[in-house]
Amino acid sequence: MSDTPDSAVHAVRTYVQQHRAAFVDDLVEWLRIPSVSAQPEHAPDVRRSARWLADKLTETGFPVVEVWPTDGAPAVFAEWPSDTPGAPTVLVYGHHDVQPAAREDGWDTDPFEPTLVGGRLYARGAADDKGQVFFHTLGVRAHLAATGRTTPAVTLKLLIEGEEESGSPHFRALVEERAERLAADAVIVSDTGMWSEDTPTVCTGMRGVADCEITLHGPDQDIHSGSFGGAVPNPATAAARLVAALHDADEHVTIPGFYDGVTELTDAERELIAELPFDEEQWLRTARSHATAGEAGFSTLERVWARPTAELNGIGGGYQGPGGKTIVPASAHVKLSFRLVAGQDPAHIEKAVAAWVEDRVPAGIRHEITFGAPTRPCLTPLDHPALRSVVRAMSTAFDGRKIRFTREGGSGPAADLQDVLAAPVLFLGISVPSDGWHSPNEKVELDLLLKGVETTAHLWSDLATAVR
Amino acid sequence: MSDTPDSAVHAVRTYVQQHRAAFVDDLVEWLRIPSVSAQPEHAPDVRRSARWLADKLTETGFPVVEVWPTDGAPAVFAEWPSDTPGAPTVLVYGHHDVQPAAREDGWDTDPFEPTLVGGRLYARGAADDKGQVFFHTLGVRAHLAATGRTTPAVTLKLLIEGEEESGSPHFRALVEERAERLAADAVIVSDTGMWSEDTPTVCTGMRGVADCEITLHGPDQDIHSGSFGGAVPNPATAAARLVAALHDADEHVTIPGFYDGVTELTDAERELIAELPFDEEQWLRTARSHATAGEAGFSTLERVWARPTAELNGIGGGYQGPGGKTIVPASAHVKLSFRLVAGQDPAHIEKAVAAWVEDRVPAGIRHEITFGAPTRPCLTPLDHPALRSVVRAMSTAFDGRKIRFTREGGSGPAADLQDVLAAPVLFLGISVPSDGWHSPNEKVELDLLLKGVETTAHLWSDLATAVR
Repeated sequence: MSDTPDSAVHAVRTYVQQHRAAFVDDLVEWLRIPSVSAQPEHAPDVRRSARWLADKLTETGFPVVEVWPTDGAPAVFAEWPSDTPGAPTVLVYGHHDVQPAAREDGWDTDPFEPTLVGGRLYARGAADDKGQVFFHTLGVRAHLAATGRTTPAVTLKLLIEGEEESGSPHFRALVEERAERLAADAVIVSDTGMWSEDTPTVCTGMRGVADCEITLHGPDQDIHSGSFGGAVPNPATAAARLVAALHDADEHVTIPGFYDGVTELTDAERELIAELPFDEEQWLRTARSHATAGEAGFSTLERVWARPTAELNGIGGGYQGPGGKTIVPASAHVKLSFRLVAGQDPAHIEKAVAAWVEDRVPAGIRHEITFGAPTRPCLTPLDHPALRSVVRAMSTAFDGRKIRFTREGGSGPAADLQDVLAAPVLFLGISVPSDGWHSPNEKVELDLLLKGVETTAHLWSDLATAVR
Repeated sequence: MSDTPDSAVHAVRTYVQQHRAAFVDDLVEWLRIPSVSAQPEHAPDVRRSARWLADKLTETGFPVVEVWPTDGAPAVFAEWPSDTPGAPTVLVYGHHDVQPAAREDGWDTDPFEPTLVGGRLYARGAADDKGQVFFHTLGVRAHLAATGRTTPAVTLKLLIEGEEESGSPHFRALVEERAERLAADAVIVSDTGMWSEDTPTVCTGMRGVADCEITLHGPDQDIHSGSFGGAVPNPATAAARLVAALHDADEHVTIPGFYDGVTELTDAERELIAELPFDEEQWLRTARSHATAGEAGFSTLERVWARPTAELNGIGGGYQGPGGKTIVPASAHVKLSFRLVAGQDPAHIEKAVAAWVEDRVPAGIRHEITFGAPTRPCLTPLDHPALRSVVRAMSTAFDGRKIRFTREGGSGPAADLQDVLAAPVLFLGISVPSDGWHSPNEKVELDLLLKGVETTAHLWSDLATAVR
């Protein structure tokens, strides 16, 4: 699979091993900064984290390093132009903020005092996402060392945001505002993981998401269910009926037009997914769930990776306190989200949902529907040249191991980059499910982190010729 | 319709007119006591109200008057044995507590400073229920005056509770504990109303009610709808589907066995209901609702009076705050109540509901169901001798007007009396819909109140011969 010469493999590995200790020391220093974007009291730490990273990128050799303010936490931008004429430009995305963490949540060690135990580095942000951002620093140095270049083979840009764990509220605006500076031929997102230590994988896409809140109004106030019940429409019942009508018996979404444009899985893609060593029991434990269920005709992985969904996130109406209250409620609301796959257009989905609701609300019930800002799906075709580059580079780093493919069921700001920059998005992550993102005792496997370093060292060379 | 001799009609009316002023003065005094059972700060007022009524009943001539303590507010019991051997016993039910009221709720006058405006007495409790309890004091005196008796023609018992507006939490226990003292051949409930001033009616029954809360548990915690959505069962969706499955397209309840034993309306009963001057627009305004809806094949009045229902009183699950949250919720709950009509057995309904839920909860969802204390339905057949007595007495008081029949869609403590005392329950009320129960500017029409007085004056004579 790899066509990287053995000499390059050796040179990269040697460089990485020589600098491993300093790399880990630096990462530890960064991880000590509690850059929790969700907690206002840590806002100074998030700014300190941005500053720390900017300084480190300057030290790494990036000639352009800027801290970009937003209406929230700052992002860090860096650029290292290639001196090769016509070299492609690659933008790396990651984030320097972290999830909240406290010892009493169940951590065995202080989440902001990184602790090394047998090749694992325990700290909040070790895998999500500081560790995976940080491998790009040593990666580009190893790339230069192994190739003898003074600038990368591609023009390398980094955009490391500071609000990803808070839902990236200012990210889209930032990308739109700075679109020219961010322009790239490909985007590499280093904020995902791979299947397992034994099964290196590349993620090829994320689902998009559209969401809405539907409020249904019945009587002008809660009314007595004895005096009026059974003779007027109940908006909470109407809400439940809407939700129940979302799916047919096969769990297909019933909204007319919902599946319009869906990029269906090819047989080859389904085979690749089926080849993954999937353990349903283990998956259910991770899902904290007690059964699988979903669209007929698809496996669990297909359902979460490649199929659109309509999910009820919240419902409320009438009396919810202790005991009972015999009312017909005045109103009820429903919060739905729709995961979208490649080929689906959020604007079309919103129109379809609104029309479907309009069509089904019974007489005597007034309704409102509001939509949140949607996120588009993104999917890189398996034969995309940049994806092939990532696969080759990763395979080289993993000693010729076969690289398989995954997708992400979730949605992320990557789609904003895809949209605004009109560039393909690739995912390069070395984190494994046991790393415990968002959980106590988050860790990163140092050996895998260094595979990430090696992958990028090879990737810039490969992409330089593969993409144009 | 009436076979009361004209002399008796004249004697009653004369007595009532002679004592009208004192009667109103006394009622005004009682209405000044803010006996709001729902507000702890008014607990002394509720006790004062009980004491005031007890004194007034003693003054009226009841030889036995007792204030019965409960674990909440006290009830008043009074008994006036008939000296006629073998006379039947009648128990009158009412309540001396009132709904909360404050000037700023929209009252034009102080709710606890009764105000007489053109034959209407405005005050909290004027109609619900002090006025309708109080007509029994002048009623029994008029009965004695007109018949020349020294004791009523029936043994007359009164049970006036103090917690009806708080859901009668201690009433059932009180009735069970005092069942021997309360024993009666018929129960007269004076806590309902009639159709309108122009259409005097007798209520013949109330629906019962059973209620339950169903909790559905899915994942052990809220989980990410991107990572897992579409591949595990969602307990909020399961809750909505349960609710949606409660009714078929004709709004019949689908729970197997739900309609077992239902006393169906006879053609004659349906005709009587259809004869009532029902104005749907007006009814909808009262219901604060914007359409009628319900079981196919039945009119609005039939739906609320004579048909059992399954109503969603509350539903909740997942995220209900502002904006969206992309989760599959860990749990959801549903609060249902079932209005029951004559012939339905709450225990049977509970079993049917539990089995139906058990049957429908999908794999991977765990559920719990709990039932509240049910209230049985009560219905007095149109040909019941005691009901015929009430109709005759009322017709006499209303100058020979035809008396029509209504029912109550709600449920009340009357059913406890019916159950524990094994006596038929009759409803005698003169309040009209415009009286504004539970609303600002509650009032009672004094002329109608005096019709209530006259009705009881005739009723005791009539019942003495009709019931046995």
